[in-house]
Amino acid sequence: MSVILDFSIFPVDKGESVSAYVSRAVKVIKESGLPYKLGPMGTCIEGAWDEAMALVDRCFQALNQDCSRIYMTIKVDYRRGGENRMEGKIQSVERKA
Amino acid sequence: MSVILDFSIFPVDKGESVSAYVSRAVKVIKESGLPYKLGPMGTCIEGAWDEAMALVDRCFQALNQDCSRIYMTIKVDYRRGGENRMEGKIQSVERKA
Amino acid sequence: MSVILDFSIFPVDKGESVSAYVSRAVKVIKESGLPYKLGPMGTCIEGAWDEAMALVDRCFQALNQDCSRIYMTIKVDYRRGGENRMEGKIQSVERKA
Amino acid sequence: MSVILDFSIFPVDKGESVSAYVSRAVKVIKESGLPYKLGPMGTCIEGAWDEAMALVDRCFQALNQDCSRIYMTIKVDYRRGGENRMEGKIQSVERKA
Repeated sequence: MSVILDFSIFPVDKGESVSAYVSRAVKVIKESGLPYKLGPMGTCIEGAWDEAMALVDRCFQALNQDCSRIYMTIKVDYRRGGENRMEGKIQSVERKA
Repeated sequence: MSVILDFSIFPVDKGESVSAYVSRAVKVIKESGLPYKLGPMGTCIEGAWDEAMALVDRCFQALNQDCSRIYMTIKVDYRRGGENRMEGKIQSVERKA
Repeated sequence: MSVILDFSIFPVDKGESVSAYVSRAVKVIKESGLPYKLGPMGTCIEGAWDEAMALVDRCFQALNQDCSRIYMTIKVDYRRGGENRMEGKIQSVERKA
Repeated sequence: MSVILDFSIFPVDKGESVSAYVSRAVKVIKESGLPYKLGPMGTCIEGAWDEAMALVDRCFQALNQDCSRIYMTIKVDYRRGGENRMEGKIQSVERKA
């Protein structure tokens, strides 16, 4: 559970409204069972490095079926031995702000 | 209110624990009065383009006081005429997922 | 000259081929006189923080004329007192790799 | 060869100078045989989706040996059937700018 991965994926060949495609990726994330947090600009997941990367791959495949151009951005924060960091990070910053 | 801006900022010269610095930026965001959403990997704000950029500048200055190396990542989704999109985007994706 | 800013901007409402729009931003960057480096996934510029932010603003305005949805990603590496870092960073990594 | 992936990786627990760690990742990239392009803020590689993801994994493992906190940002541009796009994208934009 040492990785928090923030993840955005959308097709560039489907015009301005892409939420139908984005929601496919979100469905894959939900089905993974990994903790996640939907945001306005991406979804954060928490897991082991291998789990997180495998999930990114499945999301990509879900769009790759019928999208011929796809854009993704990923941010990873890895901390060895970290556990349940998604909530912890927010609380830690909130407390001090 | 046509911009959603996802924003991460942290010093690279202060070791592994950077939440004290991150929370400075979050404080600046709170004081701005703009709608915002804290996430595990960054903070989303919503506003006009100029407001959003001015806020990024103030966050940078808050760290620039005593950090000599700073890393930032920004994602911007601009949609002309958009209003209250932060919640709308999440709901639109949630509904379909 | 203490900021290196990596910058991608493209419209999401103009279909799959966006190079005509991207090149508008690159033209603005060229005209700025700041050192820059075109890459396959974005353009790096080097300058003072204020210069870099003002240039991002001008690039945005160049697309905002006729694009109703725009996506941007920005990475910033700020190092106080840095000079001519774009080439230096590459060489420093190349030498050790 | 349909993916261009822009990739930054650095430790957050090793102080301000991280080029020794970054160069480890670059070494892994060089040894992969995939086309790549070093930039001031990251390295672009071009390959099939699976190759690109496997290479990101190997770079991560190269730092994971002795870094306890690692930050990564990734941007992916996937275009089905694309070939030799790294140079092509730059030239296409250059020509129009």
